[in-house]
Amino acid sequence: MDILAVLHILGALLIFIGATLIFPGTLSYFYDEGDLNSFAISFAIVVTVGFAIWKLTPGDREIRIREGFGVVTFGWILLAAFGALPFVLAHDLSYTDAFFETMSGFTTTGATILTDVERLQHGLLFWRSFTHWLGGMGIILLSLAILPMLGVGGMQLFKAEVPGPSVDKLQPRVQDTAKILWGVYVLLSAIEIILLKLGGMNLFDSICHTFGTLATGGFSTKNAGIPYFKSAYIEAVITVFMILAGVNFSLHYRALKGNLAVFWRNSEFRSYLGIIFGASIFLCLYLRLNTYDDSGIAIQKSFFQVASLLTTTGFHSADYEVWPLAAQTLLVILMFVGGCAGSTGGGIKVVRVLLVFKYIFAQFKKLVHPHAVIPIRYNKMTISRDAVSDILGFVLVYFLLTASASFAMTLMGLDLVTSASTVISTLGNIGPGVGTIGPTENFAHIPVVGKWLLSFLMLAGRLEIFTVLVIFNRHFWVK
Amino acid sequence: MDILAVLHILGALLIFIGATLIFPGTLSYFYDEGDLNSFAISFAIVVTVGFAIWKLTPGDREIRIREGFGVVTFGWILLAAFGALPFVLAHDLSYTDAFFETMSGFTTTGATILTDVERLQHGLLFWRSFTHWLGGMGIILLSLAILPMLGVGGMQLFKAEVPGPSVDKLQPRVQDTAKILWGVYVLLSAIEIILLKLGGMNLFDSICHTFGTLATGGFSTKNAGIPYFKSAYIEAVITVFMILAGVNFSLHYRALKGNLAVFWRNSEFRSYLGIIFGASIFLCLYLRLNTYDDSGIAIQKSFFQVASLLTTTGFHSADYEVWPLAAQTLLVILMFVGGCAGSTGGGIKVVRVLLVFKYIFAQFKKLVHPHAVIPIRYNKMTISRDAVSDILGFVLVYFLLTASASFAMTLMGLDLVTSASTVISTLGNIGPGVGTIGPTENFAHIPVVGKWLLSFLMLAGRLEIFTVLVIFNRHFWVK
Repeated sequence: MDILAVLHILGALLIFIGATLIFPGTLSYFYDEGDLNSFAISFAIVVTVGFAIWKLTPGDREIRIREGFGVVTFGWILLAAFGALPFVLAHDLSYTDAFFETMSGFTTTGATILTDVERLQHGLLFWRSFTHWLGGMGIILLSLAILPMLGVGGMQLFKAEVPGPSVDKLQPRVQDTAKILWGVYVLLSAIEIILLKLGGMNLFDSICHTFGTLATGGFSTKNAGIPYFKSAYIEAVITVFMILAGVNFSLHYRALKGNLAVFWRNSEFRSYLGIIFGASIFLCLYLRLNTYDDSGIAIQKSFFQVASLLTTTGFHSADYEVWPLAAQTLLVILMFVGGCAGSTGGGIKVVRVLLVFKYIFAQFKKLVHPHAVIPIRYNKMTISRDAVSDILGFVLVYFLLTASASFAMTLMGLDLVTSASTVISTLGNIGPGVGTIGPTENFAHIPVVGKWLLSFLMLAGRLEIFTVLVIFNRHFWVK
Repeated sequence: MDILAVLHILGALLIFIGATLIFPGTLSYFYDEGDLNSFAISFAIVVTVGFAIWKLTPGDREIRIREGFGVVTFGWILLAAFGALPFVLAHDLSYTDAFFETMSGFTTTGATILTDVERLQHGLLFWRSFTHWLGGMGIILLSLAILPMLGVGGMQLFKAEVPGPSVDKLQPRVQDTAKILWGVYVLLSAIEIILLKLGGMNLFDSICHTFGTLATGGFSTKNAGIPYFKSAYIEAVITVFMILAGVNFSLHYRALKGNLAVFWRNSEFRSYLGIIFGASIFLCLYLRLNTYDDSGIAIQKSFFQVASLLTTTGFHSADYEVWPLAAQTLLVILMFVGGCAGSTGGGIKVVRVLLVFKYIFAQFKKLVHPHAVIPIRYNKMTISRDAVSDILGFVLVYFLLTASASFAMTLMGLDLVTSASTVISTLGNIGPGVGTIGPTENFAHIPVVGKWLLSFLMLAGRLEIFTVLVIFNRHFWVK
């Protein structure tokens, strides 16, 4: 890896992140609250460091695949490392807690260590939700423009799906794709803010909850979360936008250009909708029999919770830990599945789950007809065997990482359910889980080492695992 | 599938199983206990039904791959279905319980629904352990001679490893391989019986515990299990023979012919031994710090329990449920790994775990060098990409089956840990687990539907999953 070339880009990234601190800073000034200072100091530090790095490194080096991995992984780490400053300065959080919270924000996880969110002033509350929104922007670009070129975990499948000119050079494609997709993202955000405002939320809460929804993040400005607003309308709006956020953004782009059929022609989208409706209807009937006397409430809570955990947003509209165990297990299974590729959602991704099942059915056919060649198709194209085994490998690594990290968490003295649940929730970029990190609880009680491990898992999950793990491979570092 | 051809072989199998009932029957006669009648009646039923089927079906049909799957899967089901008769007749068990117990025996699982084993008379106790031993014989043959030809889950890798003539026709190869491997199996059994007898066990218990050990089964003749004998010597002997039982029997065969180096030249064996020593030493240090004051006891208990759960035997020498959670999690992870391919052990198998890791490391290399061809080697041979993806697919199906069956168990009202644990334990052919089916507990309290589901999982686990699931594929039934 060419460290200087990577550092040059990271310097620019820091300057950009410093600039975004102007927004919460302005808000502090506007509300005349005490956290203005902390934003000013953070801004100074981040921009100075960023500028120094940018100036001291050469900008004419070639960016190859290896440098691509370096920029993405170290970039995300820097976002959390420097984005944590306002929390430390304004809120007296330990650096571990601040880093955890910020990593949780930028990776759109939504796991929090704050026991009392409402104690935060407007600037910091905004910054917390803003990290979600910025992270969501980053991930859309990453999953549609960068990872397909880096060939991570079968993402090469999506090379063809990227809007914008089909150039094989990284820079022009990334810039054009960014403009197109971020336009969609901003548009959807604006619509949700208006709809929430119409439901009686104030503008500040509307903006923050929109950030949490469209980034499939899950941070709320209220301790009670969404139930604070006591509005079926608001829950419905958020349900719909969580579902939209879990869809491949290149489909939204094409749909906005008039081609609505694009949704239905996409296998991943059909499976995604099938999972949402299948799981919600099952859950709804099950809860109607066991928990709720009112069918309307059962429908509302089922669809919200399925959408929230499948898309890895992590909002809750009910304390699902009081639901029967089988309902909770279903939710945990959905947490593994995740959103569509090219969305802001985390998890394994629907397309991979779909292809795993297609592969398994092909295997049965092959057992009966050992000499037949059985193609695996996705969106009417035959998928190469390499891409299929990349996907199988990805899903396996996902499970293995879950198992080994859960083991590490039990070594820290946590019970089995909490250990597995913290890992599933952070690796899948979800937020809450079951056990002692349920929807009405938080991560404050996790040991310090555990918080660092979970921060690492959020990063690994967000960057499709291999992008992060490759850093530990010696081939990566050889020049 | 040619049903008549399959039935013909199944008829012969039933006659064979009827014949094996003569052994426990003779024992009942010898001890002059009341269960003689039940064996006589069972014998009459099984042999009559078997003979009728055999006579009424043609014996000259060709056995193709599809019929191979049919014989193996339906054969194992018949073993359990008819082998359960003595339990029903002599012990007043419900048919569900008797079927579960017998399936547990023939699949060498060792999960029991009996709350008081010692209430059984000698004939039935022997039959219970004998099903282990017979099942072990079956599985050695299956995994080394039949599955490699059927191409299940990457087992084609072992085509070359089978001793005996390299003929591609099923019958001569199966017969010769059977003779060679069963010779080894009988020899090892004889040695263990003698060693246990020397340790002060009576002949009956020595034989039954040898059956439980070499088949990696786990049924004991005592309610307290191995701790009943209060002998470090006996625990040591059983530890060594569990480890031997978890090794590919074709290696034992070659070693007995004088080529001892064969063990060390085998990658799977080296990994297997590495896992045993690595996990035991870690566990031993961890337990020495947390649980045991005596280093000797810590070593003894660690090696026994690691060997028992890794090889999927399921004996216990300590109530590991009182150990710290991390120790239990480690044991659960080992339950997934399982023994070597071609052994009597269950689980995923060491070779598959090994190849999954090799694949993952190759993926990292590939990410950094996208145009390089990175071969995956096993025992110095390059493994075909098809075999690698077969293996990845197998491991995934194993995890998916674990998850979906665990969900089904929670639907029956079991807690999360018990649900997952019953599934892991039966699919891996282990026996005990954690939760309410710990080493000092049993499966009696599982709901009836759950017992049938778990019986199915024992079968699926034992026959490498695909062999059983293929039955549900319509291509299988088309003639």
